[in-house]
Amino acid sequence: MQHPLAHVGDPVANVATPALVIDLDAMERNLGAMAAFARAAGVRLRPHAKMHKSAAIAKAQIAAGAVGVCAQKVSEAEVLAGAGIPDIYISNEVIDEAKLARVAALAGRIRLAIAVDSILGVDRLAEACSGASSALDVFVEIDVGQKRCGVVPETAGVLARHVVSRGLRFAGLQAYQGGAQHVRGAADRAAAARRAATLVRAAQASIASENIDCPLVTGGGTGTFAFDVASGVYGELQVGSYLFMDGEYGGIEAAEGAPRFEHALFVKSQVMSRSESHVVVDAGIKAYAIDAGLPQVLGRELEMINFGDEHGILKASGSSSAVELPQLGETVWLVPGHCDPTVNLHDTYVAVRGGLESGVVEALWPVDTRGCMT
Amino acid sequence: MQHPLAHVGDPVANVATPALVIDLDAMERNLGAMAAFARAAGVRLRPHAKMHKSAAIAKAQIAAGAVGVCAQKVSEAEVLAGAGIPDIYISNEVIDEAKLARVAALAGRIRLAIAVDSILGVDRLAEACSGASSALDVFVEIDVGQKRCGVVPETAGVLARHVVSRGLRFAGLQAYQGGAQHVRGAADRAAAARRAATLVRAAQASIASENIDCPLVTGGGTGTFAFDVASGVYGELQVGSYLFMDGEYGGIEAAEGAPRFEHALFVKSQVMSRSESHVVVDAGIKAYAIDAGLPQVLGRELEMINFGDEHGILKASGSSSAVELPQLGETVWLVPGHCDPTVNLHDTYVAVRGGLESGVVEALWPVDTRGCMT
Repeated sequence: MQHPLAHVGDPVANVATPALVIDLDAMERNLGAMAAFARAAGVRLRPHAKMHKSAAIAKAQIAAGAVGVCAQKVSEAEVLAGAGIPDIYISNEVIDEAKLARVAALAGRIRLAIAVDSILGVDRLAEACSGASSALDVFVEIDVGQKRCGVVPETAGVLARHVVSRGLRFAGLQAYQGGAQHVRGAADRAAAARRAATLVRAAQASIASENIDCPLVTGGGTGTFAFDVASGVYGELQVGSYLFMDGEYGGIEAAEGAPRFEHALFVKSQVMSRSESHVVVDAGIKAYAIDAGLPQVLGRELEMINFGDEHGILKASGSSSAVELPQLGETVWLVPGHCDPTVNLHDTYVAVRGGLESGVVEALWPVDTRGCMT
Repeated sequence: MQHPLAHVGDPVANVATPALVIDLDAMERNLGAMAAFARAAGVRLRPHAKMHKSAAIAKAQIAAGAVGVCAQKVSEAEVLAGAGIPDIYISNEVIDEAKLARVAALAGRIRLAIAVDSILGVDRLAEACSGASSALDVFVEIDVGQKRCGVVPETAGVLARHVVSRGLRFAGLQAYQGGAQHVRGAADRAAAARRAATLVRAAQASIASENIDCPLVTGGGTGTFAFDVASGVYGELQVGSYLFMDGEYGGIEAAEGAPRFEHALFVKSQVMSRSESHVVVDAGIKAYAIDAGLPQVLGRELEMINFGDEHGILKASGSSSAVELPQLGETVWLVPGHCDPTVNLHDTYVAVRGGLESGVVEALWPVDTRGCMT
């Protein structure tokens, strides 16, 4: 057993470092702003639980109006279902037969959906479900510009026809343009979202040509959701990062009229070594992901210049060589570059009420699906 | 509870993906080669458990002659101690008073050592240990070129004097040159190791000038260990990655006459989506670290060209556009770029005997100190 990071009621100063800390007030504002946006826009909200990996947070999202959550892995869906989440969409392909048997079993316990992008995937899913009593929703994924998974939009009807012919329930289109989410300029991002919407329409036409109804288009992300809604093609949003934000999303230009979100997720670190030129904090790449850049330092003229597995090296930032470096033992708050893989490094959220300066630990939440890979 | 990745006795083909797989035969050859080298060289071997995070592996290393292991965090040492490892060196600074109380408590349970690089750190350690019955070994860390932690070598004597004056047991010098480990050319790496050794000698002189005995210099890594031993200053090696190797260490030129090590750690992945131009495997940056580059593909003319949190995108590599892409459902073995942070993503090692092609699962080992950050 690991030593606990903190206890409920502790002042934030007492939280051991490094720790993954949620500013609950900020998170709840983000949660409410997206829920209100979706409600006003008349679209379904199905936040992506691949980001937060927490049943407690999924329940809060559902309480605020979300229809359920997305997951990216069968194991995530299994764990979230076990923790009481009743409606989960695995927005990803599963091709392995042993995993598809787990999918079929899970469909007997909760309302479940999954994505497909191949004839083989549909065939194996149908075989896995052939003896099962409960149906699940099947979305055909189309490539709307990310060049990752998904069929060519103009061929979506062929695969939808195969879904139906195998006795599965065709539920609509999975259309996520991951590559558009972090385009910095709002106009450029809007253009990428428009291109994606055009491809969605091509897929809808392909499905209509098969005389198949396409009940729903699901997709969108924290970068494009306002544009996705404006396009009129999306009926459900899969936004994830809006809840916590991160350095990468903090760096994009917000869309006009869309809600803004605040940083709500931080890594608390402590200065453990200090020289004349730099300080070293006790949080390295086992405490934050760096695929979208090194963490930013909150509220101080410091920048991280290098990292180790367990170390972060900080110097006075650019123009401020006169800045005094923090002292040994001082707290340094880091804003992760990318929230999803940062969360996945931690076993526990320390949820703080009342701000990072003088707040109190209100809850410790397990990162329930941390390490759920299969 | 997560679905198990595999069961003991399963053929490797049945291991769910993505999974962290050890080729036990290769690992044991690496383990034996380093143990034999240290024995022949007459230096102590204290492998770094920050890399493998496994009590089972630590025990195998100790059974092969290691004096104990290193850890980088108090929580790692606590968990390894709880799993029966009797001799642990926290080769890192701890400045937090609550953590130092844990260090003092742990020193009553096992043979323990720790590093310091500040007067404040020594004072707080002494205060934490003041009521404790058991002593621990204290190493003064010097900066031998990494520009991270550690005092200026010429001032090591001052800090050693302070250790002694506070009633603590000065055990020697911590001298790790992390920056030298991955220098590609053997001659350049040897030169960096020589510079580090020169700095160690300066620190030894500083300590001698205080009339303090310096019993041991501990340090070294998988890149420099042969040069470190040749320098004559190191009495203990903290090598970690030799056991598994990774893409980064696989890319350096081996030192003449030193043992060679094989890749023994892999991420098993599966093709889950396929287009004319690329395939997508079900392992992304939640299954491997990318700080030292994207994973390499084992034994196939494929290269990873992009990644997502749960996806890896592969194309035919450079000169081989005629290569047929793997089929949906096929296994693809990935060699991580950096073993330490890759291991830290996984909860379980799947240890396979008899090779990756047709081997059998011999053991499932927990990654005991995964997520141990404090």
